[in-house]
Amino acid sequence: MKEAKLLGEVIEVASSKDKNYNYIPKNYQIPGGADYLHITTNNTIFGTQLKNTPISRIPIIADMSSDIFSKKINVSDYDMIYAGAQKNMGPAGTTLYIVKKISLGKTGRSIPSMLNLEVHIGKDSMFNTPPVYPIYVSMLNLQWLKNSGGVEWIENINQQKADLIYNEIDSNPLFEGTADTDSRSNMNATFVLTNEALKDEFDSMWQAANISGIKGHRDVGGYRASMYNALPLESVQVLVDVMKELANKHS
Amino acid sequence: MKEAKLLGEVIEVASSKDKNYNYIPKNYQIPGGADYLHITTNNTIFGTQLKNTPISRIPIIADMSSDIFSKKINVSDYDMIYAGAQKNMGPAGTTLYIVKKISLGKTGRSIPSMLNLEVHIGKDSMFNTPPVYPIYVSMLNLQWLKNSGGVEWIENINQQKADLIYNEIDSNPLFEGTADTDSRSNMNATFVLTNEALKDEFDSMWQAANISGIKGHRDVGGYRASMYNALPLESVQVLVDVMKELANKHS
Repeated sequence: MKEAKLLGEVIEVASSKDKNYNYIPKNYQIPGGADYLHITTNNTIFGTQLKNTPISRIPIIADMSSDIFSKKINVSDYDMIYAGAQKNMGPAGTTLYIVKKISLGKTGRSIPSMLNLEVHIGKDSMFNTPPVYPIYVSMLNLQWLKNSGGVEWIENINQQKADLIYNEIDSNPLFEGTADTDSRSNMNATFVLTNEALKDEFDSMWQAANISGIKGHRDVGGYRASMYNALPLESVQVLVDVMKELANKHS
Repeated sequence: MKEAKLLGEVIEVASSKDKNYNYIPKNYQIPGGADYLHITTNNTIFGTQLKNTPISRIPIIADMSSDIFSKKINVSDYDMIYAGAQKNMGPAGTTLYIVKKISLGKTGRSIPSMLNLEVHIGKDSMFNTPPVYPIYVSMLNLQWLKNSGGVEWIENINQQKADLIYNEIDSNPLFEGTADTDSRSNMNATFVLTNEALKDEFDSMWQAANISGIKGHRDVGGYRASMYNALPLESVQVLVDVMKELANKHS
């Protein structure tokens, strides 16, 4: 929204700001006269995820940076899908676009060639010297995904990972999730201790188990377990075991 | 120029189009009322290179993508230097900017944050998730350059490489350079056979010597020996030996 406001009129269709973004809004009206609806399908900071594509009579543009290739989607629901590589596709440094050509060429102004998708399409994605390494490693990763069973295969594993961590969060009295149950992300599980006094003990325990990177974003606090495609089910189990161990010590 | 025309008024100060861009123009007038003078310091296609910074009363913005770190420059001569990493710095996928802060914030319009250098400066070059691998390898390469003796050291080697190939081009009757002598690039030597009938023979010989990538750009034809920092003097010698061998066969 901040970027769009630099160049045009913006309407905020829905927000969960009232509860620190811990749920996916429902029952909002999409203005029929707008040029497009922009959505972000997964929120890495607050651990929420859109489960269904909004019903929209106007084109949908979706930022899928943090959940593309994690589950099956109906590509044709979107006029444009874009995603930075760095979560489920490959190393940071390249961005994927899937776009309906009919959506292009409608800005009504001159824009720099680097921002003009028609230019990139016309040059077969090699208008500029492309970031070769991120693209090459993305190819290797997508080949691995395809040969392993594809998006359906990884979606199943991602669901197992999410079920594992959320079942522990819900059954363990020392923890609670921060996102509404029906808005929970399968990519990023956010949770807090119910007793802040246990923070140092818990932090020591997961660090001793060689877990890293689960401190929550500063806007939420607590913990965030990211479970992108690259994370195996076994790694989620390690965290769940530590959570169980903490509960056993204090039961 | 093509890009600048999308957003503002452009004056072509000088061109060598009349001779297929085979020389660096001299004695041109820089309009005193212009916002900036844009130059590209090295032309990889035509094998020409600016030897001296233009004397300019208006700010100079320089694209140094293909010769940055190849020779000493006076950084303060420029209000902005920019360079894609992929020639002398590191893998494709990142761009270096050296900018005088006083030059920024003067577009007079709203521009996307990703194109706003003030935003990147404010975020210590981490406004977006940066392309980690190209930046990391650039660091390793720059450390190597610094530890080896720095830009002065590589400038001396680059001069030896350029002298070696251009001396051969000038002394070997079977070859001639395409760029004017005083405009020749130390990064990209462009040359043609004086007798096109020898093309197949020469091509077979350099391929047999494990040389690759010396076919000239389609706009120039002939050959282009690129001699970026990463290319050792010995590799230029291999090419020169093949050129000498061809001359010996036909003397």
